[in-house]
Amino acid sequence: MKKLLLFSILCSLSSIFNPAFTQKQDSIMISRIFADALTHPDSYKNLEYLCTKIGGRLAGTPSSLEAVKWSEKVLREMNLDTVFLQECKVRYWERGEKETGKVISLKAGNHKLNPSALGGSISTGEKGITAKVIEVKDYDELKKLGKEKITGKIVFINHPADPALFNTFAAYGGVAGYRVRGAVQAAYYGAIAMIDRSATTAHDEYPHTGIMHYADTVKKIPALSLSTNESDRLSQWLKSDPELSIFIKSSSIEHPASVSYNVIGEIRGTEHPEEIIAFGGHLDCWETGQGAHDDGAGVVQTIDILRLYRSLGIRPKHTIRAVVFMDEEMEQKGGKAYAEAAKKMLDAGYWMLDKNDSAVNSRQSTVGSRHIAAIEADRGGFTPWGFSIDATDEQVKKVQSWKNLMLPYGLYMFEKGGSGVDINGLKSQGVPLFGLVTDWQRYFDYHHSTNDSFDKVNIRELQLGTGAMGALVYLIDTYGL
Amino acid sequence: MKKLLLFSILCSLSSIFNPAFTQKQDSIMISRIFADALTHPDSYKNLEYLCTKIGGRLAGTPSSLEAVKWSEKVLREMNLDTVFLQECKVRYWERGEKETGKVISLKAGNHKLNPSALGGSISTGEKGITAKVIEVKDYDELKKLGKEKITGKIVFINHPADPALFNTFAAYGGVAGYRVRGAVQAAYYGAIAMIDRSATTAHDEYPHTGIMHYADTVKKIPALSLSTNESDRLSQWLKSDPELSIFIKSSSIEHPASVSYNVIGEIRGTEHPEEIIAFGGHLDCWETGQGAHDDGAGVVQTIDILRLYRSLGIRPKHTIRAVVFMDEEMEQKGGKAYAEAAKKMLDAGYWMLDKNDSAVNSRQSTVGSRHIAAIEADRGGFTPWGFSIDATDEQVKKVQSWKNLMLPYGLYMFEKGGSGVDINGLKSQGVPLFGLVTDWQRYFDYHHSTNDSFDKVNIRELQLGTGAMGALVYLIDTYGL
Repeated sequence: MKKLLLFSILCSLSSIFNPAFTQKQDSIMISRIFADALTHPDSYKNLEYLCTKIGGRLAGTPSSLEAVKWSEKVLREMNLDTVFLQECKVRYWERGEKETGKVISLKAGNHKLNPSALGGSISTGEKGITAKVIEVKDYDELKKLGKEKITGKIVFINHPADPALFNTFAAYGGVAGYRVRGAVQAAYYGAIAMIDRSATTAHDEYPHTGIMHYADTVKKIPALSLSTNESDRLSQWLKSDPELSIFIKSSSIEHPASVSYNVIGEIRGTEHPEEIIAFGGHLDCWETGQGAHDDGAGVVQTIDILRLYRSLGIRPKHTIRAVVFMDEEMEQKGGKAYAEAAKKMLDAGYWMLDKNDSAVNSRQSTVGSRHIAAIEADRGGFTPWGFSIDATDEQVKKVQSWKNLMLPYGLYMFEKGGSGVDINGLKSQGVPLFGLVTDWQRYFDYHHSTNDSFDKVNIRELQLGTGAMGALVYLIDTYGL
Repeated sequence: MKKLLLFSILCSLSSIFNPAFTQKQDSIMISRIFADALTHPDSYKNLEYLCTKIGGRLAGTPSSLEAVKWSEKVLREMNLDTVFLQECKVRYWERGEKETGKVISLKAGNHKLNPSALGGSISTGEKGITAKVIEVKDYDELKKLGKEKITGKIVFINHPADPALFNTFAAYGGVAGYRVRGAVQAAYYGAIAMIDRSATTAHDEYPHTGIMHYADTVKKIPALSLSTNESDRLSQWLKSDPELSIFIKSSSIEHPASVSYNVIGEIRGTEHPEEIIAFGGHLDCWETGQGAHDDGAGVVQTIDILRLYRSLGIRPKHTIRAVVFMDEEMEQKGGKAYAEAAKKMLDAGYWMLDKNDSAVNSRQSTVGSRHIAAIEADRGGFTPWGFSIDATDEQVKKVQSWKNLMLPYGLYMFEKGGSGVDINGLKSQGVPLFGLVTDWQRYFDYHHSTNDSFDKVNIRELQLGTGAMGALVYLIDTYGL
């Protein structure tokens, strides 16, 4: 540590006389950040615990609260300046018993189905639903068929994600809407249930779940998802017997809203403790899987940035803060609570610690605090490619001027674009926002399914994400935005 | 097809009057190439067959000849202009029975070992070898111990790959030498066998094999590899009992050299049939695995470029040729045979079809043929990052001027560097060489081990590699180098 301090002092002195030295110094520090991330697999070890010991953890559920306690414990053990919980009230939807389903057809045969209720869907009732199926590719086909042909049937929206797109998020974006709003559209024409083809680029046997919404003006009907392979098979069976029936049963329960928490840990800045660089991922995940890539990865990586700062003995000038967000998947109540609190602080001119604060090491609250940047990691623990930047053109240019420092670690993408759902509430407060962009080819193979488990995460890819965000935090802390 | 031709004619006409149109036209064509690669999973389907139906296929083995036949069949079914085999004489080393091993120690306990003979190693003999173990980290330690302490023992070289390096090929490069030359060094000091820590960045239970060499001046001793986890355990056991013995047994056989083949398929150029753009991977692989990433991926991708050209109706100006190389892992006899034949053609001023040519669709041999570029894919079927270019500065700059066309598909790396072992023989003939660079974080998890199996390959990542090379071939064909 002493050697590091001496090194820092020497570097600071030298940089006054030689600007090229500063670039060299940054380059050395970024190489240390990546080396530290690659040689200390704390992100990976924490992810293993979160995924395999706690597992699925949708907001409101007991396991999500267990995950909150675990996050707090991990942060407390890091000897940070502050660790506290921030309250938020979350929806508590429970899947209930494992869903069942079957195809009933004399011509096409009887076949088991393996559906997954979409998040927020009402239950089918104990008896389940048995009805004929109408397959459509989109809302136009639904409209053409009209109430007469749809009333009393189960609508099957079978729209594949476009495999031709390089950007799998674009492919997902092209179909996720059917999952979210398909039940409303189907119910409008009299359907008694909606089943959709999983919103994924994969061809697999996993139903991929995710949030769905109802509308106040339209009757609520159960909404379930089938795997892409099962959707292909059902489509084939419908060709051989358009009159076939299916049976589906789900038993989800909507509990009263319950209290949950964001978990926050920080290292106070030495020069500008009132200026915060925040970074986070979301702790909640769909309970059919372990939430390894979505978004256990983001949680453990952002926590690990704090460890990395301690490990390298870097004392940040600004306060650096890991935010473990709650409830991204359902209603983003954690992100909203965080943005509201930030707004209050901004308006009031000071940062109030949350009332639940029980930080062992907390110092006095910081007057006049504001966010100077926020980073979200919510695209899986894959090889990082760079950052999507939601900021002014000038700020984007400044970040792009750091590109050469990041390129040796495969970070080439520094483009204007969205950041992440959890930090998006800070946008209206003028905070520059960043989203960690990672290799997106495999993300939707796992997304929202049982397949999103710890064994699908590569240790080096995950740790590189920690390094990438650590390096960005270092540059923002050093040069501002 | 007619529409495509009309489109091509219109594009050609427009480009005469508007250079910006040319850029747009290239951009459209490259987007089609990637879309075609992503929507026609032929690389993936072929890889599945090669890996799961043929499997391990070290040069000289019966299964390597089965793979040659299969490659020829695949190429013949593509209705190419020429398909032919090119003879080469290869070493035929056979692993024999599965290797066994155990630790024998009263203090540290008896433990099973799971070694893998290094490629080319002599056998331990039927009785195996039982001896004390000397652990060293490098040759310096070996030298310090000297003949007195080493004679009659088994040397265990336990040098971990550096996890801190972003570039796993650099980490591998730092340790692979112990595998290749460790037996010679150990035997020089009187060791009776050498075992090494697998040359990989992974922490796993798979021994990773690979070629090793003997020297004429030093006694040949058996050389085997232990997995990284087993190496860690053995090191621990040696700490608790430095006097422990181990037993190792391998039964490899060196057969007489045998005849094998490169498999070549091509589409003749419409304007310069005598100018060849070659691309290839190597068919042989270590027989402990299925050779999925090393290098089934490169084989199926390069074959698939020809299919892609047919599928899109692109008629190349130059001859484009897929070369399925034999014997990269042992002695690169396929690559050498290919370069020699190319040299002869170059010297003689014409391209002679191989005497084994029995191409159904072959045309007349092409007078004055020469290679204008060669591309090798031998870094696994992962997300492509770009190309390593072994060419003149001017040629590198020209390729870099195409970067903006490739960047939308994640290809950002176009740097001067090595290409691939199989095509390297063309270098002295002045041919610009390219190596497909792919995400290297996971490569050595699989490399040369049982873990290199088809299920470790992601369909989109693999197909993108096909697209990347298809796009480069298109640009070289259009603009030359």
